[in-house]
Amino acid sequence: MSYFTEANSTDTVNGRMGAQTDARLATVMESLVRHLHGFIKDVGLTQEEWEYAIGFLTRAGQICSDERQEFILLSDVLGVSMLVDAINNRRPEGATENTVFGPFHVDGAPIRQMGDTISLDGKGESCLFEGRVLDLDGNPVEGATVDVWSDNADGYYDVQQPGIQPKWNNRGRFITGPDGRYSFVGIKPVSYPIPDDGPVGQMLDHLGRHPYRPAHMHYLVTAPGYQRLVTHTFVGNDEYLTSDAVFGVKDTLVAPYERLEGGETLWRSPFDFVLVPV
Amino acid sequence: MSYFTEANSTDTVNGRMGAQTDARLATVMESLVRHLHGFIKDVGLTQEEWEYAIGFLTRAGQICSDERQEFILLSDVLGVSMLVDAINNRRPEGATENTVFGPFHVDGAPIRQMGDTISLDGKGESCLFEGRVLDLDGNPVEGATVDVWSDNADGYYDVQQPGIQPKWNNRGRFITGPDGRYSFVGIKPVSYPIPDDGPVGQMLDHLGRHPYRPAHMHYLVTAPGYQRLVTHTFVGNDEYLTSDAVFGVKDTLVAPYERLEGGETLWRSPFDFVLVPV
Repeated sequence: MSYFTEANSTDTVNGRMGAQTDARLATVMESLVRHLHGFIKDVGLTQEEWEYAIGFLTRAGQICSDERQEFILLSDVLGVSMLVDAINNRRPEGATENTVFGPFHVDGAPIRQMGDTISLDGKGESCLFEGRVLDLDGNPVEGATVDVWSDNADGYYDVQQPGIQPKWNNRGRFITGPDGRYSFVGIKPVSYPIPDDGPVGQMLDHLGRHPYRPAHMHYLVTAPGYQRLVTHTFVGNDEYLTSDAVFGVKDTLVAPYERLEGGETLWRSPFDFVLVPV
Repeated sequence: MSYFTEANSTDTVNGRMGAQTDARLATVMESLVRHLHGFIKDVGLTQEEWEYAIGFLTRAGQICSDERQEFILLSDVLGVSMLVDAINNRRPEGATENTVFGPFHVDGAPIRQMGDTISLDGKGESCLFEGRVLDLDGNPVEGATVDVWSDNADGYYDVQQPGIQPKWNNRGRFITGPDGRYSFVGIKPVSYPIPDDGPVGQMLDHLGRHPYRPAHMHYLVTAPGYQRLVTHTFVGNDEYLTSDAVFGVKDTLVAPYERLEGGETLWRSPFDFVLVPV
């Protein structure tokens, strides 16, 4: 038996776990303690830095509410959310890639007919989103639910502005038929900052980083027999495309967009989703 | 320019830091991101585990108050507080070792005369604490302030029980004379649990760990020209000596204690403190 020292710290802490500890929990905690101690030793963390970290975590916890999740923001801006998403959604070549779910999805959006508009506030540049839901062999997937949501032209989701935006503004669900096709009219989304008036915003500022996400349309595509797909398409030549504050952009998710002439709809952004069987 | 992937995650996140970032902050953040991503990759953290972690941190933040610091508890039970303490207080052979400060010190305790008692509530087994404050060559240090505090016989510090314990119960400051000697009567301290009714207590429970600290007397020893010493002595054959919930025990801090016969004072615990020059 030996007491805790700088040299044996990781083994001493991990050695304290009881024999009955759940095996997976033990694996996770052992690695967490090893990396946490490794970090502290690598940088020689000072007492003042430790105190700052305690204060930072406390402020982050205290700003959390039903409408605000500062620890998810922290996870997002450190690339943790995207890394967890990537590890848990490795897909074969040709399948549509996942990206972060984000905090703004709402269950139960209205089911609409193909071609319907989801923009209810009349703001923004209208854009036709269309394409197919396919399997890995290129066959159409019938009965897929394409659940979509985006911000409005002011950069806010409807749930961020209750009473200002109409309920279900820029949201809707579309069910594919035998051809696997979907289409709806929304707006060309706009870039927006993640909430940056808390500790995470301060951290970004200290790191010389902006809080913006490039414009994107959210998709949750589900179909019986297929893995759930959570993704965005990035629409437009957004100035933040290469510096998304939450690292959500992937090469394959940057969607084409074309200027349409002569009609009410100004843009068209075609994109096919390829699902993987369960 | 490449987008975030599982393979390049650390470099991508760290590469986002601005060129003007403070050099020390950049060093700390680079290592933090590297270890954080390394942990997630090593264990293949699942989406559900990530969600649990977000919830855990949120609950920890929300339970914090002026009287409760759950993140310090978390740091304590993961060995982080002791590791930071060790790294920042490396001392030459022969010098008294540091240990964690703890949350219960109060500035401005009464200055008492040598031999005075600090136990004001009449509870517990009285114990004479005495010894010398020395330099590395064994010379007495004059004018050293020996600031001491402990729990009472019920396992609570006075600040945890305002209105129940007398103010300054089991606290005091003693100033050494030319002989470097200190002495005071307190109680033989008792073991007590750290607050375990929050997320950290739940975590200890899941890990099969108890929340107890072995009995100890706290010391803050300061003297002009010497490094500040923050330490405890561990007094008694405590059942938790080898399993301190916060890993604060060191071999050299386990103090002798002797049974005294025939007087009011039941125990004697001698201990010399050896200071390092600044």
